[in-house]
Amino acid sequence: MCRNIEILDSTLRDGSQAQDITFSVEDKIRIVKILDDLAISYIEAGNPFSNPKDEVFFEVLKDIKLKNSKIVAFGSTRRKNTRPEDDNNLKALLKTSVEYVSLFGKTWDLHVEKILNTSFEENLLMIEESCRFLTDNGVTVFFDAEHFFDGYKSNKAFSIDCLKAAVRGGAKLLVLCDTNGGTLPFEMTDIIRDIQDIFPDIKIGIHAHNDSAVACAVSVMAAQMGIDHIQGTLIGFGERCGNANLSAIIPNLQLKLGYLCIPEDKLRFLTRSCRQIAEISNMSIPKSTPYIGISAFSHKAGMHIDAVSKVSSSFEHIKPSVVGNTRHFLLSEFSGKTALIDKIKKINLTIGDNKNKLEHILQDIKEQEKDGYHFEGADASFQLLIRKHLGEYRSFFELINYKIIVDNAYKQPMIMSAVVKVRVGSKERMTAAEGNGPLNALDLALKKSLADFYPDLIKMHLVDYKVRVIDSVLGTASRVRVITTFKDQKSTWNTIGVSSNVIEASLIALVDSIQYKLIKDHEETR
Amino acid sequence: MCRNIEILDSTLRDGSQAQDITFSVEDKIRIVKILDDLAISYIEAGNPFSNPKDEVFFEVLKDIKLKNSKIVAFGSTRRKNTRPEDDNNLKALLKTSVEYVSLFGKTWDLHVEKILNTSFEENLLMIEESCRFLTDNGVTVFFDAEHFFDGYKSNKAFSIDCLKAAVRGGAKLLVLCDTNGGTLPFEMTDIIRDIQDIFPDIKIGIHAHNDSAVACAVSVMAAQMGIDHIQGTLIGFGERCGNANLSAIIPNLQLKLGYLCIPEDKLRFLTRSCRQIAEISNMSIPKSTPYIGISAFSHKAGMHIDAVSKVSSSFEHIKPSVVGNTRHFLLSEFSGKTALIDKIKKINLTIGDNKNKLEHILQDIKEQEKDGYHFEGADASFQLLIRKHLGEYRSFFELINYKIIVDNAYKQPMIMSAVVKVRVGSKERMTAAEGNGPLNALDLALKKSLADFYPDLIKMHLVDYKVRVIDSVLGTASRVRVITTFKDQKSTWNTIGVSSNVIEASLIALVDSIQYKLIKDHEETR
Repeated sequence: MCRNIEILDSTLRDGSQAQDITFSVEDKIRIVKILDDLAISYIEAGNPFSNPKDEVFFEVLKDIKLKNSKIVAFGSTRRKNTRPEDDNNLKALLKTSVEYVSLFGKTWDLHVEKILNTSFEENLLMIEESCRFLTDNGVTVFFDAEHFFDGYKSNKAFSIDCLKAAVRGGAKLLVLCDTNGGTLPFEMTDIIRDIQDIFPDIKIGIHAHNDSAVACAVSVMAAQMGIDHIQGTLIGFGERCGNANLSAIIPNLQLKLGYLCIPEDKLRFLTRSCRQIAEISNMSIPKSTPYIGISAFSHKAGMHIDAVSKVSSSFEHIKPSVVGNTRHFLLSEFSGKTALIDKIKKINLTIGDNKNKLEHILQDIKEQEKDGYHFEGADASFQLLIRKHLGEYRSFFELINYKIIVDNAYKQPMIMSAVVKVRVGSKERMTAAEGNGPLNALDLALKKSLADFYPDLIKMHLVDYKVRVIDSVLGTASRVRVITTFKDQKSTWNTIGVSSNVIEASLIALVDSIQYKLIKDHEETR
Repeated sequence: MCRNIEILDSTLRDGSQAQDITFSVEDKIRIVKILDDLAISYIEAGNPFSNPKDEVFFEVLKDIKLKNSKIVAFGSTRRKNTRPEDDNNLKALLKTSVEYVSLFGKTWDLHVEKILNTSFEENLLMIEESCRFLTDNGVTVFFDAEHFFDGYKSNKAFSIDCLKAAVRGGAKLLVLCDTNGGTLPFEMTDIIRDIQDIFPDIKIGIHAHNDSAVACAVSVMAAQMGIDHIQGTLIGFGERCGNANLSAIIPNLQLKLGYLCIPEDKLRFLTRSCRQIAEISNMSIPKSTPYIGISAFSHKAGMHIDAVSKVSSSFEHIKPSVVGNTRHFLLSEFSGKTALIDKIKKINLTIGDNKNKLEHILQDIKEQEKDGYHFEGADASFQLLIRKHLGEYRSFFELINYKIIVDNAYKQPMIMSAVVKVRVGSKERMTAAEGNGPLNALDLALKKSLADFYPDLIKMHLVDYKVRVIDSVLGTASRVRVITTFKDQKSTWNTIGVSSNVIEASLIALVDSIQYKLIKDHEETR
């Protein structure tokens, strides 16, 4: 039987501490769903006391039913010299109604003396009483021993007393946190071994930060030493250098050591899930990121490409598809064929006898990627591209021209007018619409102009769009990539447009979205 | 006395295998000089046989005198069934006239049988004869045992025979390479210990790849086990997931374990050297990179900011200046007064006696953050906001109104016209300009309209801009955040604009940028 390892993802809590990350409540809900789909054991959702947005989020969460994951609220032990029942932070935690709380407390004497300015005795009481208060109220408490490794190195006896106080208070798990990320592997394993000896009967967890670039390694080593609760963030987001990166830890444990972190059939969704979370966060995953990065299985050296073609393990430590990633041969014409055939099958099309078509599609993708297209996050546009090559595309309308007009006093409410002219068969329609942004105005104008022909278009709505500058070049003439997300009552789809002009890029994505919707509806009624 | 650890940097060889990296000969020379300045022991400069550009580079290197580092050439053992003296690769290595050669040979039975298609005996001869040939010609040979850990796991006896062949041939160093990067820490340390027992009298090195996200950790652990030659690349560049990142390994060993990798007075140039190499490589260093990333010492949570201000070690594992990096306090809903005071000081303003102003500024920031502003990435806008509160703001112009006109056939090259009307003092100017995007057109029109009053504006240029939708709400009427980066001949600055309309958001950021530039110029000439 496989050994089970619990995973706690803190993308929404520790991850939101990262530079450049700000999640809206809507972002958070989407991330919770992705983590739940991946069957991550615990989702640390936020700190309801310190952050008003999180308070709202926990209210919203009450109405969301998860299939696999448990929600965990995060908060601090009570303030010094108060009673737990009077502590606003502990009360905010209870108000979330969640079953699990990560409760952090000080375990480093330096912090108690210099930052909290209280006595060791009071700190121990803060831990014990807070744990007991939550436990008595039916909550399962995970005690996050903040700065535990620094605390142990500074004052071993006191740091252990803190853990004992948590156990006395009823904590069900002691999470050893390397909050500053400064502890090296051998040092950390020595300390873990000591704590395991002192607390043979209580579950111990590890929470590592990557400031010394060893967070993944120490988490894996801890698991091998018998730790079976590991905390991190799925793509490594977190303050400073980030948290232990679960997207490397999970496959390391699961593929190389045979432990079970998430159900076996979920692992192949790892890359996709990470990329979705990155999109929502508007962060890019560095190409070289282990397991999930675009370059993680890219080969450039001719010798390596030859060898990998003969025996995949010759230059790949795992099969990329196992984590949902893909092999790429750089500067070589035969990259990704298997992935392409796979995609074509997925949309119920066949390549038929003409194998040359595969080459043409790959060539086309390559050309478009050179222009800044990137189909990873734009499945609907990708599908349209394949359909064109396979003769399975039908143009339902033609956009002939468009005008955009803005005439505005500065900082006054802006109205933008869009005028579009379309052709369907032999008929032309010209209409105009107003909106408060170009995409909005163009979307309304296009749907209005097509309403006589395709009344169902009224059911599709823009849910989200993202704009990214793709060449960071001098001057304002850089290219932009727009990805739009539309939905109707049945599904959600993404399209992409690239142009030097944000309006044109939006329009290309918009036209694709409408075409996709019409083709989809047409196929469904066939 | 400090224990010395030799460092070999392979940025120019393994690093050049990374996706998106292509070095010119000129680039390589600049990188060699940076590594030499940093006193890296060995610089692996390239493969003179496989790459014609490297052949030229080694010729150029003959005329370059280094202060600290030794140049190493990289190449393979002889081809099967040839004599070393007839082998073009070995001859190319000799032709470089370098004193040191990294010679790689197969040590994994799978590669010998399936990729090389030769016998074990021939492989052992290839290693021994190639090492001897180079040694006899006065070269010091480092034997790179390719795929050593996979080889050991697959056929221990054979992998060790390969090492013995290298020693018989005169190799002075056995470098154990985890070429696929698939080996986990405990497994690796077990194998290293075994090899140390078998070869007590020969120097052993380690060469790790980061496919399992443990390359830095295993290199540090190896050093602690007595390995005193470590290979990697300064910023971790390398095929797939990159090589062991020396910018983390060096400070880990030097600051935390007291070993000496580079002279003590060089460490503070680490961040600068890495950023220079990234510039030359046209790669960006991910912000969260340990030790050298922009976020490596950035703090966002108010609690952390307060604590770090009291005791730096409370949330920092080392002092950032030791590696030449800087601490940053990020402004956000999580942060408080300390971060604000720090920012105000940095821009040479004082808050004076009126402590209420701090509250007002924080309140204002909070209000604006609710609207979607986010000052962390927009220092110039933040500075303007503070100036307004402190009475240190001056409005150099007023934008009265603007028009945007697009009239275009779909997918034809788009030209956008912007018309702006500004007021400076009692004078008004109305001008128009064309551009290929709204920001571009408005930027040109605004600068043109102000040219009579502020001719220096011509020196500021848009370098980059980012657009993000901030509320993911239903319908197209979501808000967008635009962050622009401008530069002039002296500095670079960021501003932010938020609006439901991407054009208005751009315009707000643009107006802030011009105001910032004018205030900055005004202050400098006072």
